[in-house]
Amino acid sequence: MKFVIYADHAATTPLSPTALDAMRPFLEQEYGNPSTLYSLARKPRRAINDARALIAEAINADPSEIYFTSGGSESDNLAIKGIALRFLGQKKRFITSSIEHHAVLHSFEALRRYGFSTTELPVERDGVIQCDELSAAMTPDTALVSIMLANNEIATIEPVKALAEIAHANGAVFHTDAVQAVSHVPIDVKALNVDLLSASAHKFNGPKGIGFLYVRNGVALEPLIHGGGQESGMRPGTENVAGIVGMAAALKEHIGKLDAEARYLNLLQKKFINGLRAKGLDFIENGSTNRIPGNVSLSFGNASGEVLLHRLDLMGISIATGSACNSKETTVSHVIQAIGVPEKYANGTIRVSFGPENTEDEVLTIIEGIYKILNP
Amino acid sequence: MKFVIYADHAATTPLSPTALDAMRPFLEQEYGNPSTLYSLARKPRRAINDARALIAEAINADPSEIYFTSGGSESDNLAIKGIALRFLGQKKRFITSSIEHHAVLHSFEALRRYGFSTTELPVERDGVIQCDELSAAMTPDTALVSIMLANNEIATIEPVKALAEIAHANGAVFHTDAVQAVSHVPIDVKALNVDLLSASAHKFNGPKGIGFLYVRNGVALEPLIHGGGQESGMRPGTENVAGIVGMAAALKEHIGKLDAEARYLNLLQKKFINGLRAKGLDFIENGSTNRIPGNVSLSFGNASGEVLLHRLDLMGISIATGSACNSKETTVSHVIQAIGVPEKYANGTIRVSFGPENTEDEVLTIIEGIYKILNP
Repeated sequence: MKFVIYADHAATTPLSPTALDAMRPFLEQEYGNPSTLYSLARKPRRAINDARALIAEAINADPSEIYFTSGGSESDNLAIKGIALRFLGQKKRFITSSIEHHAVLHSFEALRRYGFSTTELPVERDGVIQCDELSAAMTPDTALVSIMLANNEIATIEPVKALAEIAHANGAVFHTDAVQAVSHVPIDVKALNVDLLSASAHKFNGPKGIGFLYVRNGVALEPLIHGGGQESGMRPGTENVAGIVGMAAALKEHIGKLDAEARYLNLLQKKFINGLRAKGLDFIENGSTNRIPGNVSLSFGNASGEVLLHRLDLMGISIATGSACNSKETTVSHVIQAIGVPEKYANGTIRVSFGPENTEDEVLTIIEGIYKILNP
Repeated sequence: MKFVIYADHAATTPLSPTALDAMRPFLEQEYGNPSTLYSLARKPRRAINDARALIAEAINADPSEIYFTSGGSESDNLAIKGIALRFLGQKKRFITSSIEHHAVLHSFEALRRYGFSTTELPVERDGVIQCDELSAAMTPDTALVSIMLANNEIATIEPVKALAEIAHANGAVFHTDAVQAVSHVPIDVKALNVDLLSASAHKFNGPKGIGFLYVRNGVALEPLIHGGGQESGMRPGTENVAGIVGMAAALKEHIGKLDAEARYLNLLQKKFINGLRAKGLDFIENGSTNRIPGNVSLSFGNASGEVLLHRLDLMGISIATGSACNSKETTVSHVIQAIGVPEKYANGTIRVSFGPENTEDEVLTIIEGIYKILNP
């Protein structure tokens, strides 16, 4: 692989060597099916239990509240449809925001096809969802409120604790899509007071194809996948043992240095924005001040995010325009539209998301690259 | 890991070194998110396309008809609920058999909760589903028929081509759970005339946590997971690149030696059954003569399958009693009940499923082990 400056950690992250080392025994030798009864199954079964305990501890949950899934999209779908499918044929409302990931927004589209009512809350210019908007939208038949912990495009952290309180006061279950937040900000499901929380391993240097859903004990969900008894029947299917073990190892590695990483990523972020300002470039910073460290969304005036992406790519620099899941579209993303970026700037939006392996020199190289493209 | 004789290949299989080698670049280096637009995404994206083409070729499908999932259970659920969720609120019937995997049977339970009608076809003593039973069960409102290609407990191969014809003649879609069949018998979706076919990689020496669903072009499904545009929107979520690549490599490896493997596994199977007979043991062979090679279900008179499993385990031999997904239960499995194994024999049922790495000496060791346990 040729040398690149990778600054799209919000799209995915390299698999941590520590995580891969933890996975190796289950790829190379310990192939036993954890559901079987003979000795060969013991190590994989114990490894899954250990991973579950580790992940539970990392977010202050009980191990019985952690369910392994194939990733963030499945976790979001299981949370939302897991509530909805219990109420088929009943008049129920589901509330979300206009800046959620498509795994949530398109699940809500499905709910409408299934006969449910939905509400999408607007956001402020900084991407923050207002508590009074949720209060006003709550109805007695609201079954679920789903609001992300941090936005994947503009990094804004939402006031989830306060929003969850409003949902609970009205008898609704609260889900948060924490895919972009886990391993970047400390997460305590009890302090946040959420009932359901989604996460995906590949966003925090774990393997692709594995994630988890936290389900508070006592919250009843209809499984999305039915089958054997795995994951207490909530998510059947022979366990992706290597993936589960790798996810837990990657999370443990991050949790141990969360503050140090946040400080470093904030430093890179500051250097990046100050450097661009010093060049006299005309841009808007998107998102709120309470944000995921190192995740920067900028909208340049009279520019094209797509052109920036491709020209930077030619310089060996990987960044995003819009969200990764959306990158085949060339229209302005739904998040950039929802926060109302002025037309002059909207098309010139890029997302640069740093990781711990990025250096200050790389930040300078990206600044130079952007400057050269915009001032040819 | 201590030395074991592994004879439970129907539960899971060791990851092939060839498959693991194919996966390594995507675990170690090529971490790019395939949905992104920069150069880093090219190799993973191409690898996914290559894997899709390879799998399609292996079952005589078009690459556009292959959708990657997290495994067999998800594939079965997507096929069944993908049809059902399109008809919510409508009077529709779904037909299956009484010996399907729980991923199918429990999905059918869910369909009943969602308001649909279902029918479970009985089976003969050899586990074969009769065409006239299906013909009699078909109704004008039947949306889907789901019958497995081969049973996971007794290895019986079902007359899927004939059953699919009956379904089609009545305007229903036909799904087959081929999780136990893929890589053991040649599969040609056009010859079989099926609309939907499920497979799971870890059953054919691929990695755990990945599978695929064949969806005949023109068959409309409601996705089980909504989100980004991956897998043409049919199965969103960042792709498990390493898993996909490993699955394709494992399948390719098997397809190349399908006949030779079948001959060898049939030889081991014959040696095993003849050896047990020569010992004068009292047992019934379950399943039909048209069966998955090397997969043997036997019911011993006045014996306990559970005791056999545990005592063989102490001798370093891994086999199953009932199906793996069911192994935490000590009751007679639904399949053994459905085929009507006499009471004297039902509790003494074990499944021995050989793989290409098993030797004739190992077969003799297993025979000796069973003989010692039953004649102490």
